[in-house]
Amino acid sequence: MSTKYVYLFSEGNKEMRNLLGGKGANLAEMTGIGMPVPQGFTVTTEACTRYYDDGRKIAPEIQDEIFEYMKKIEEITGKQFGDKQNPLLVSVRSGSRASMPGMMDTILNLGLNDEVVEGLAAKTGNPRFAYDSYRRFIQMFSDVVMEQSKTEYESLIDEMKEKKGVKQDTELDAEDLKELVREFKDRYKKNQGVDFPADPKVQLIEAVRAVFRSWDNPRANTYRRMNEIPYDWGTAVNVQSMVFGNSGENSGTGVAFTRNPATGEKALFGEYLINAQGEDVVAGIRTPSPISHLKDQMPEVYTQFAEIANKLEAHYKDMQDMEFTIEDGKLYMLQTRNGKRTAAAALKVAVDLVDEGMIDEKEAILRVEPKQLDSLLHPQFDAEALAKAPVLGTGLAASPGAAAGQVVFTAEDAHEWHVDGKKVILVRLETSPEDIEGMAVAQGILTARGGMTSHAAVVARGMGTCCVSGLGEMVVDYDKKQFTIGDKTVKEGDFISLDGSTGKVYDGAVPTVEASISGDFDRLMKWADGARQLEVYANADNPRDAKQGSDFGSEGIGLCRTEHMFFDAKRIKAMREMIVAREVEARKTALAKLLPFQQEDFEGLFEVMGERPVVIRFLDPPLHEFLPQNDEDIAEIAGELGITAEHLHNVVEGLHEFNPMMGHRGVRLSVSYPEIAEMQTTAVIQAALAVSKRKNLNIVPQIMIPLVGEVKELKYVKDFVVATADKIIKDAGSDMKYEVGTMIEIPRAALVADEIATEADFFSFGTNDLTQMTFGFSRDDAGKFLDYYYENKIYESDPFAHLDQKGVGQLVQMAAEKGRKANPKLHLGICGEHGGDPTSVEFCHRIGLDYVSCSPFRVPIARLAAAQAAVKNPR
Amino acid sequence: MSTKYVYLFSEGNKEMRNLLGGKGANLAEMTGIGMPVPQGFTVTTEACTRYYDDGRKIAPEIQDEIFEYMKKIEEITGKQFGDKQNPLLVSVRSGSRASMPGMMDTILNLGLNDEVVEGLAAKTGNPRFAYDSYRRFIQMFSDVVMEQSKTEYESLIDEMKEKKGVKQDTELDAEDLKELVREFKDRYKKNQGVDFPADPKVQLIEAVRAVFRSWDNPRANTYRRMNEIPYDWGTAVNVQSMVFGNSGENSGTGVAFTRNPATGEKALFGEYLINAQGEDVVAGIRTPSPISHLKDQMPEVYTQFAEIANKLEAHYKDMQDMEFTIEDGKLYMLQTRNGKRTAAAALKVAVDLVDEGMIDEKEAILRVEPKQLDSLLHPQFDAEALAKAPVLGTGLAASPGAAAGQVVFTAEDAHEWHVDGKKVILVRLETSPEDIEGMAVAQGILTARGGMTSHAAVVARGMGTCCVSGLGEMVVDYDKKQFTIGDKTVKEGDFISLDGSTGKVYDGAVPTVEASISGDFDRLMKWADGARQLEVYANADNPRDAKQGSDFGSEGIGLCRTEHMFFDAKRIKAMREMIVAREVEARKTALAKLLPFQQEDFEGLFEVMGERPVVIRFLDPPLHEFLPQNDEDIAEIAGELGITAEHLHNVVEGLHEFNPMMGHRGVRLSVSYPEIAEMQTTAVIQAALAVSKRKNLNIVPQIMIPLVGEVKELKYVKDFVVATADKIIKDAGSDMKYEVGTMIEIPRAALVADEIATEADFFSFGTNDLTQMTFGFSRDDAGKFLDYYYENKIYESDPFAHLDQKGVGQLVQMAAEKGRKANPKLHLGICGEHGGDPTSVEFCHRIGLDYVSCSPFRVPIARLAAAQAAVKNPR
Repeated sequence: MSTKYVYLFSEGNKEMRNLLGGKGANLAEMTGIGMPVPQGFTVTTEACTRYYDDGRKIAPEIQDEIFEYMKKIEEITGKQFGDKQNPLLVSVRSGSRASMPGMMDTILNLGLNDEVVEGLAAKTGNPRFAYDSYRRFIQMFSDVVMEQSKTEYESLIDEMKEKKGVKQDTELDAEDLKELVREFKDRYKKNQGVDFPADPKVQLIEAVRAVFRSWDNPRANTYRRMNEIPYDWGTAVNVQSMVFGNSGENSGTGVAFTRNPATGEKALFGEYLINAQGEDVVAGIRTPSPISHLKDQMPEVYTQFAEIANKLEAHYKDMQDMEFTIEDGKLYMLQTRNGKRTAAAALKVAVDLVDEGMIDEKEAILRVEPKQLDSLLHPQFDAEALAKAPVLGTGLAASPGAAAGQVVFTAEDAHEWHVDGKKVILVRLETSPEDIEGMAVAQGILTARGGMTSHAAVVARGMGTCCVSGLGEMVVDYDKKQFTIGDKTVKEGDFISLDGSTGKVYDGAVPTVEASISGDFDRLMKWADGARQLEVYANADNPRDAKQGSDFGSEGIGLCRTEHMFFDAKRIKAMREMIVAREVEARKTALAKLLPFQQEDFEGLFEVMGERPVVIRFLDPPLHEFLPQNDEDIAEIAGELGITAEHLHNVVEGLHEFNPMMGHRGVRLSVSYPEIAEMQTTAVIQAALAVSKRKNLNIVPQIMIPLVGEVKELKYVKDFVVATADKIIKDAGSDMKYEVGTMIEIPRAALVADEIATEADFFSFGTNDLTQMTFGFSRDDAGKFLDYYYENKIYESDPFAHLDQKGVGQLVQMAAEKGRKANPKLHLGICGEHGGDPTSVEFCHRIGLDYVSCSPFRVPIARLAAAQAAVKNPR
Repeated sequence: MSTKYVYLFSEGNKEMRNLLGGKGANLAEMTGIGMPVPQGFTVTTEACTRYYDDGRKIAPEIQDEIFEYMKKIEEITGKQFGDKQNPLLVSVRSGSRASMPGMMDTILNLGLNDEVVEGLAAKTGNPRFAYDSYRRFIQMFSDVVMEQSKTEYESLIDEMKEKKGVKQDTELDAEDLKELVREFKDRYKKNQGVDFPADPKVQLIEAVRAVFRSWDNPRANTYRRMNEIPYDWGTAVNVQSMVFGNSGENSGTGVAFTRNPATGEKALFGEYLINAQGEDVVAGIRTPSPISHLKDQMPEVYTQFAEIANKLEAHYKDMQDMEFTIEDGKLYMLQTRNGKRTAAAALKVAVDLVDEGMIDEKEAILRVEPKQLDSLLHPQFDAEALAKAPVLGTGLAASPGAAAGQVVFTAEDAHEWHVDGKKVILVRLETSPEDIEGMAVAQGILTARGGMTSHAAVVARGMGTCCVSGLGEMVVDYDKKQFTIGDKTVKEGDFISLDGSTGKVYDGAVPTVEASISGDFDRLMKWADGARQLEVYANADNPRDAKQGSDFGSEGIGLCRTEHMFFDAKRIKAMREMIVAREVEARKTALAKLLPFQQEDFEGLFEVMGERPVVIRFLDPPLHEFLPQNDEDIAEIAGELGITAEHLHNVVEGLHEFNPMMGHRGVRLSVSYPEIAEMQTTAVIQAALAVSKRKNLNIVPQIMIPLVGEVKELKYVKDFVVATADKIIKDAGSDMKYEVGTMIEIPRAALVADEIATEADFFSFGTNDLTQMTFGFSRDDAGKFLDYYYENKIYESDPFAHLDQKGVGQLVQMAAEKGRKANPKLHLGICGEHGGDPTSVEFCHRIGLDYVSCSPFRVPIARLAAAQAAVKNPR
């Protein structure tokens, strides 16, 4: 038998979401449990896939099947599609597996033409209603099926109202509407070149085609990429017999939630309009009434609706978002679905449902979208003030939160203004490690270049500082200390505001409100911690971040990047002396100056973390990052260092790299200059000994060697580390333990992980670099071409935001398996940006890693994601 | 039982090379077949490994075992080690599995001290001989065991000769030598701080230790890396009882080959010295006599030696290189081994041995080192002239051959001077694609920067042009048109000579001689072609290279890089117009100008190759490579293009990449600008149709998409290619076939090769890029740190020269297996630099690839290597 592409509502149920889409499955489910649902059928998501496979054509047999089911609806309703006496009209709506804004929504009243409209008028005795329905249909069809300009039709209505001297659409009479229908059809022909299709069958197939087509429109594609919805899911189409909320004063339409979607409060929440169709509620032309008013206006309908709402919530065991229509006093349910809600509401509903005995704690864990927690953890703009604020531009939502402050253009200025008690927004073309201090004191960071994993974005997320990156239209003029976007120029000292959750940049200072974490948060997170198997660590380079991560529930530090410490003004000089040293002895002298600073840093971390694991990664970036690049700075710094500008220039030249990403960095630095690893080992071990003694703790520091690709490379450096560490520990008369592990971040490391594991106590997957090298593109450069890839569905999501499980994940899994086999005690974790991404966290759980580490502000997200992964995939 | 670390010669045989080393195994074998070999024992390679494992110490049990075997030798010889009446003296020599220059060679006369020497004098009645032996021993021990300066001891001898007014060492008498021994011992004590060791046992163990230690000296390490000899093989030590060629006029020592190692001619070839020890033959102080003179001088000894030589050659079935000593008229064999020989000799010997019925053709294939063929395929310097030429410096031997010419510093000058009929050497800091035309006409290329796989090196090898790269000490001054190395300045127009096989750069024009390929070459290569299973293709971008590869026996073109064609002066303008175009239409207009050029290029290739496969790779480098970088050039070229300098500057800025290696290149260009792929497809297909028609051929062109990492990416571009190609073929009324394949050169491609294979007709492994991305280092930058890796044995060979089988090879094998499984018809090959490297070729054979492709001049090497692989690893 051939594939069945069409299902009556009575043939489906809520488990058939993949095939029927969410809307179709729920209409079927409601039909099944006896709700008053206008009957209809669903064209499956497979038909959509087939449409694309067939080169964007609806195969004749699918068209036939649609018409066959139309006949069944005619039988069920006793009306005829296209009939002049007793016409069947239908709505056509899209419905994919997941709720997807950006796709075609609804066409109502389909099936009308010049003759059918007369029949409808006669049958209902209400010509005004009939022509109102007809003009609405033409309008919607022109707009959503034929993609004609909406405003053209709106202005025809406005002209008509002006001519008639009325203000409301409802004041137009049947004749006016009939005239409008004529004008609409003329306009349609003018725009389209052909007559408005009078054949209901043509109307229907065109509408179905429009739904399929809308699956591939740019807004839908963007939404899918951001939400990791696969392109090949496709959308279903729901064709439903019409009921009319616009058939008189005893009719109406509305939407309602079983609980308040903003707060989670348990009470019907919604609104309705009398004598209206669904679009009127959304359009905002008339002001709807709150759902509670229905109680007075139509008490019986209200009671019936409240019962249905209760029944649906109990049935779905979740807050429902429902659409209904009242036709001549009779209630019809047009849709139900789990309602979208704010983070706060999500928490409250989940916890309340447990308390109400509707769901258990595991189920509650699954009810909160981990990413949503973000908004609870950062300050937010005052919603009202925000609505009025003028938008300067939109960049990438690189690090969430809301920030307002005065514009400065250098890290130094940020620092100075901050000392003067000012709140600043640091604006840069792009940031570099030298800007760290300025970034740390800024309210927010705005850059013209760089993606979601640019330096600015990564560092800002780590700090929990709001950041908008990659605002390409912004032209920064450092000399004049100003930037321009279009005509607008913003000067140093001017106020702007950044929304790091939307990427929007606003003119002026928009007031912010602090986030508040409710008791529901704590309860849910406790359940999550009980359920999850992955440990959750934070990436933290300093005590402040360590504390932040700890407050958010991190169980350790999975990544402390030691180089960030070297950019401090007091330290960078010694660092530079080390780099320009020609001999190992001079290098050691410079390193000796850095040692006390490093030890102090590590003591700070150990103080905060106590006996919890702290993984300290040794120096990673290429040395040229610590040196000035332009002649002026070179001259100045050469002076500071007491060497000639020529010498420094030669060092800078000598360190130049064609592909710094693949250059002299990571473990390669330790191989060339083992004295750096020796100094860092000394700092780590002495710090751990000091804090252990001072606080009577049993600290086991963990040293992590980055960028390893070969076991001999790790062993070579580890030998220095161990020799240095053992001597210090022995001299201190201590028996302190420590661990030495490595990052797995270049493909070869994963391929030979069995060998590397024999020399490592732990692996930490550095999935940022691993992604770059596995894909062979640099994240700094990929922005230029990845848009073409998204546009053409070659890659459906950003591999730097969501781990590429097929490619990069294959390497991670391979390395984890090989590593464990060779060394069963190996501790396995991930410390890239993906450590805070829910789907990536789920992957880490599935392949059996031990921990994930992410920026402090993502720790709660990772905890919840890890719990969800464990609930969904019991080990 | 514990490991046996010592073997008598009579306990071994030639199959025990891994344990006893080459020298030890052959001494054992000669002993076994009854040759007159002074008896002794071999300390195994496992003892050497143990020495390193034990932290560079010879374990007491190994020392005991050595002395135990010393006792056995005493029994065999009837002499006593350290005895004053009848002393046993020994030689100590290293001997690893493969012959290895750079290691400690020989210590003779070990066992002498102030008392033993008197006994020896008394026993032989020859005090002069005894003291001569003693001073030689002290000298050798001080030099090779204690690493003292050789020249200090030589000058003591010179002083003595001056004092005595004699010219030859042989003119010094016993008393003189006794005095010298005293002076030597004083010098030893002065240098070493302790007395010269009088205890023969101490002497012996120190000598053994010195052999072990020499396995790890820098020269040995370098040799091993270049010849892919694993560090963990270790060396054996041979301790052999002394016979004395210096015991009078009826004694002597010599070396001889069974055939001429320079020409392969079948006749004893060698030389000897009367009254001398081995070192004298090498030292060149006295002039040895040709071996033929021995026939007259000692006819019986000569006859015996000639018989032994014949017997050994027949036994080993290969040309032998032998050392012998005559003591008081009696012949002793001290060593035999397969003789090193020139490429020409290797060919002649292999072919002759087949003709003589000694070996079969398969064995003959194994007898020629593929790399050796190189020297037959390029012109060489006249050896005598070369010896006198002053060396300016030594860079990397980047592309073999010999070249002499006048120095020029720009590609343009190279071109102009070439047109004027001059021979030029192009000297650059480093080369870029823009220099191609100049490189093509130069005799040789010299660069200051860049390694074995830099642009200059890769391109030069492809062209078969001699190249020395990475001559770091050379300071190039483009403004003054000169370069300096140390004090020496070379100006434009001065003559220099390059030896691309040694990396040496000579002052002046050294005369060259053309290479001549003998008939033996053809015979052996025919046998090789019969034996191999891998196809061998050439990498060729133009008809000249295609012809060259074809002449060298290539069966197709495995890689035609289309971008090289765009740097031609006539074409680069259209290319630049294409790049600066803001709209697709302007881009298409520019591409239309390039089309006829491309088509002409491809027609040229098809004309040469006929129906043999030609794989054409689409545009690969990032577009900025085609644009000027400095302001002056930008202004000029903007003028040419009729755009503002600002516009061009913005384009250049916009194309800037942080890591161009991982940037917007390869298939990514085709995804962004499908019109480029369309133009290239049009050129390929039209060219193939035109040549097929003109020459009545059935050409099946192959289109290769580079840098693919995902099947959808390949499919996206392939769809354009197929649509374009099919239309042209259909319009031409043809049914020509064509193939579309991809390079596998980024790790992800290998990981998802099963998916990619469903859209590809062939995979070509681009192991240059795959190596870079798998190791995570850029070949342009790795030079800065890889030396530390070699020094510390982290990597033992250059992964760009020899495929890293463990890491990169794992990906290649994985991709080959996954690919074949998904698409059994998939044609698999390799087109990186490794395609011409014998061990990499063997790996390709073992994992079942179908072909290798390499630069034309490496085709014979690859053919032979493929044959050897097939003989050694029958599929």
